[in-house]
This record gives sequence, C-alpha cells and structure tokens, in this order.
Amino acid sequence: MRRPILSVKAPATSANLGSGFDAMGMALSLYNVFDLMELLPEGEFKVEVIGEGTGSWDLSLSQENGVVKSYLAACEAMGVRCPGLWLRCHNAIPLSRGLGSSATAVVAGVLLAAEVSGRKASQEDLLELMVRLEGHPDNVVPCLLGGVVVSCFGDQGLKYLKLPQPPRDLMAVVAVPDVMVNTREARSALPKTVSFEDAVFNLGRAALLAAAWSVGRFDLLSFGMDDRLHQPYRSKLFPGGEVIMDRVKSVPGCLGVAISGSGPSVIALAKGSPSLVAQAMCGTFMEHGVRSRFFVLHCPVSGAEVRRLAGR
Amino acid sequence: MRRPILSVKAPATSANLGSGFDAMGMALSLYNVFDLMELLPEGEFKVEVIGEGTGSWDLSLSQENGVVKSYLAACEAMGVRCPGLWLRCHNAIPLSRGLGSSATAVVAGVLLAAEVSGRKASQEDLLELMVRLEGHPDNVVPCLLGGVVVSCFGDQGLKYLKLPQPPRDLMAVVAVPDVMVNTREARSALPKTVSFEDAVFNLGRAALLAAAWSVGRFDLLSFGMDDRLHQPYRSKLFPGGEVIMDRVKSVPGCLGVAISGSGPSVIALAKGSPSLVAQAMCGTFMEHGVRSRFFVLHCPVSGAEVRRLAGR
Repeated sequence: MRRPILSVKAPATSANLGSGFDAMGMALSLYNVFDLMELLPEGEFKVEVIGEGTGSWDLSLSQENGVVKSYLAACEAMGVRCPGLWLRCHNAIPLSRGLGSSATAVVAGVLLAAEVSGRKASQEDLLELMVRLEGHPDNVVPCLLGGVVVSCFGDQGLKYLKLPQPPRDLMAVVAVPDVMVNTREARSALPKTVSFEDAVFNLGRAALLAAAWSVGRFDLLSFGMDDRLHQPYRSKLFPGGEVIMDRVKSVPGCLGVAISGSGPSVIALAKGSPSLVAQAMCGTFMEHGVRSRFFVLHCPVSGAEVRRLAGR
Repeated sequence: MRRPILSVKAPATSANLGSGFDAMGMALSLYNVFDLMELLPEGEFKVEVIGEGTGSWDLSLSQENGVVKSYLAACEAMGVRCPGLWLRCHNAIPLSRGLGSSATAVVAGVLLAAEVSGRKASQEDLLELMVRLEGHPDNVVPCLLGGVVVSCFGDQGLKYLKLPQPPRDLMAVVAVPDVMVNTREARSALPKTVSFEDAVFNLGRAALLAAAWSVGRFDLLSFGMDDRLHQPYRSKLFPGGEVIMDRVKSVPGCLGVAISGSGPSVIALAKGSPSLVAQAMCGTFMEHGVRSRFFVLHCPVSGAEVRRLAGR
C-alpha cells in the first residue's frame, strides 16, 4: 500500500459556546486527517475522500476542495511556487454540521503550503493567514492550537488567548442530527441590530464564561453560556432546536449546552456519565423526526499536527 | 471626643472597565468611612458629612441620604425593626464622578442594617439585596468583595466571580475632572439598539479581558478593554472625553484605559511610574479647560469592612 509523504491531522472545533459568539471556540478530539500522497506538476490536483462527504459534489471537485483552495491561497500569500498535490482526505468530522470541518481544510491547506514550500513562518503568521482565509477566528484558532481559545479579529489583527486546560473528566457530548444547516443561511438568520440590553446580556455572560473557564469554576458554565444574540434565531433552523437546550441543561451532570457553531449539532459539556446527556439530545431529535448520532469527546490540549512520514 | 459604636469602611469602585459594561468592576483603595455614633429612636436620623459632598443638598437631608435609604430598605427587606441612626460620613470618594460613591452608601446601609438588627444573613443574601437596591451589580459587588469581579444580574438572580488578584505593582491611576456627570443622563445617552457587529465586538473583548485578567496576561488588557457600546456616547458628555483615552493609551506603562463607571473620571491601569499617565490625563483635561485631580490607587483584595469599636 502506498504511504503518504506527510500527514496533517486537524481537530473538529465547536465555535461560540453560547454567549461567546464569534469569539470562543473549543477543540474536540475528533479529527480529519489529510495525507499528501505525491507532489504533482503545478496546477494539477487529485483529491480522494474517505469517510464523511464521500461523493458529495463540493468535495469531489479537486480545485474547489477546501484544502486545495486554502493551499493555493496560502502559497500566493507567502509568495511561493506551489506544486500540485495528490491528497487523500480521511474525513471523520461530519460536514456542514457546525463542527468546524471547513476550518480543518483551511488549517491543513496553510500547513501544507508551509511544509511543501519549506518556507519558515511563525505560528502567529500562519494563524493570521488562516483567520483571514476563514473570515473569522473562532474555529481555526482552536483547530490549530487545541484547547479552548478566546480570539478577536479586527483592525489591529488577531488577538487570542488560550485558556487553561479543563479537568480530564470534562466531556463534550456532541449530538449531530441528520440535517444540514448552510453556514451562509445561518449567518443571514441573524439580526442586523439588537437591543442594547441583549448586547449587554451577552457580554456579561461571555466575560463570566471566559473567567469561569480560566479559574476552573465549571459550576458557572451553564449560566455563562446563556445567549440572546444568535441561538434564539438559529435554533429555529433545525428540528428540535427550540427545545433541546432547555431539556439537556436540566440533565444531571450537564454543565452547559450550546448550538455548536452555526448548528445543527448541539454540544453539551458534562461530568459523570455522558449517557443521560446523549440520550436527552438524541431523544429530542428523534421526537422531532430526525435521526442523529452522538460523539463523546474531550478537549485536546494540542491542535493540528503535521507528521512527516519516516522511510520516504 | 465621642467615639463611634461601629464603623463601616467601603471602597471606591470602577465599573465597566471598557468592554465589560454593567458586568465588570474593580475595587479601588480609596474609602468612604461611615461611623455609627448613636442609635436613635425609630424614624430619627442625623447625618453629618465630612469631606466630599459637604454642604451638597442631597447629602444634608438625612432621610434622603443614600446610607439611610439603603438602611431603611434593608431593614424592610429583612423584616426587622429599625432604630434611627446618628451617622458621621467621612467621604473621600468624589461624588457623581463614576467612582461608585453611591454604591458605598448602599453597601454601608445594608451592612448597618444587618449589624444593628443582629440578624444573621449570608454574604450572598446581603449581596443580592445590595444589587437589588443599586439596580446593577458592577459597583456593589466589588465594593463588598474587593478585587475585580465579573457579575451578572438577571432572572436567575446574581451570579458573580471574583477574579484572581492582580500583581502588586499594578496601579490604577484615576483622574477626576471638576465636572459632574449625572448617572441618569449618562444612561439616557446610550442607544436603544446597537448593530450586531458592535454587540459581537464587545462580547469578544469582554471575554478576552476577563480571561486575560484571570490568567495574568496583562499585555492583553488594552485590547480587551476596547468598547463600542457606551464609551463612544459617554465620552461626549465631558470635556476632553473624546481624546483622552487614545492619548493615555499610548503612554509607556499604560496597560489599558477606560471611562470609570458613567464618567467623567477616567481610569488607567499602569505598571512602572504612574507620573506620565497621570500627566497625560490631567494635561488633557486642562487643555479642555477643566481642572482635575488624580489618585494613584491599587486594587484591594478585601472590600467593605465593619469594625466594632472596642471600649464601648
């Protein structure tokens, strides 16, 4: 069997965590792995997909593939020549479910460009490039760095802070319903203006959430994750969305629950047995006529990794 | 000289810290001291004021005095009889300048009610009562607890988190111009609605600020304190307000700057010599035709304290 030249492993991420819209994000121990099988002549790309998204149109068109697009944009930004690639994508992260699968493609593309070109670039430079390509920082930053990250992207560039690692027994239970939410649609469901009170509501919760996570006061997560800016709108975009969070919140051991990214996946942070939490999530989806799967994950301390394969 | 029965010492506070509108607040090492000289028959109040606010109408009317009002409201809430009080208020905190002088009165009134009635009440209960009397938590919580606190007050009651103590060499330089801003006017200057972008801007900064403070990344304070929700409006309410923050921010050693509470005082967090920061602040006020004083303070780890005086 042919072995790859190098391999990029990039984690799923859950953006927002409720109140922390566009600012907070958490890496999850579920990975896409992108193998570089061969360098090809410039302009030639061959992309194979194994796992999630197999046969889906947007992954099969090589030049339109997220990793290839990010690779080409990164080469251009770095001012380097870019050979073509033969990629084999092992996708374990469900697509278009709010779990950051597109961020893994952005991160992997940039890391591949840096590796293939041999161009030395600081992690900061790579990160800023990734955020620019993705348009917002809340998935790509934890995807590259691991852990839970608060990040802001604006005129002054990217500022971020990786928070202390949660205790080992903190789990992220993620339920993924069998419906897709288009990210663009999820964006356009958001209001153009909000009441001053709602803005103040969210900033207070986001500050409390970030501080509680930083000092290990996980009893405050549920309160701190409360949101009025996006979830009230986005919960209408998928079956069960309007009831699932209240139900899961009240399950023993649940520390907080949120729509993951722009949905429709739902993430619950939990201690103790995850089974009741998973049951409440998948049960609610089932009642609303939609099948779902669930994952019991943790928050990995490391993010995306490049592995050069020995013997080649 | 007559000695008091007991004495309540309560610190100044700086609410908001920029992005953390209505949620973050910091205790400052500048104190009002309220001495209880005598218990009087029910309904009789005698209030003497020494220091700030001497001769000002709202402090001279005993029944309208903030401490008395808070005391009466607290006695009613606790369901206890309330003797009258002879109070001597030593006010070191400038009034109506955004430094939480009214919060010290609320806190002192509630503590006096608990002391005088002998009613055992948990700190949580007292705090919730104080927040209800004040209407928002961002001054009274750090006034009672000291330090820097993130707090939210809503349907589920009060939730708060006291952040780790800053390093000893972190100073708060506070410039107090010789103009008053009415808190009600400062509230009505705020917009009823804000753009979604501005709401997201502030919540990201507030989360970054709270996390940075929690883990000691003081290099991120200035970025994290950036605000679009209230300071752009309130900086117009006092001379120099629209330029002072940008000027002070660029002074070496300045870690961040904000309007204190609803203004017109300005607070700068600084390391190293505070003189350049103070000079930039007072100089800007002077250029705009207004005299100012400044205080170099720290953030005390303890908040309001009741002292029973020996020998009585």
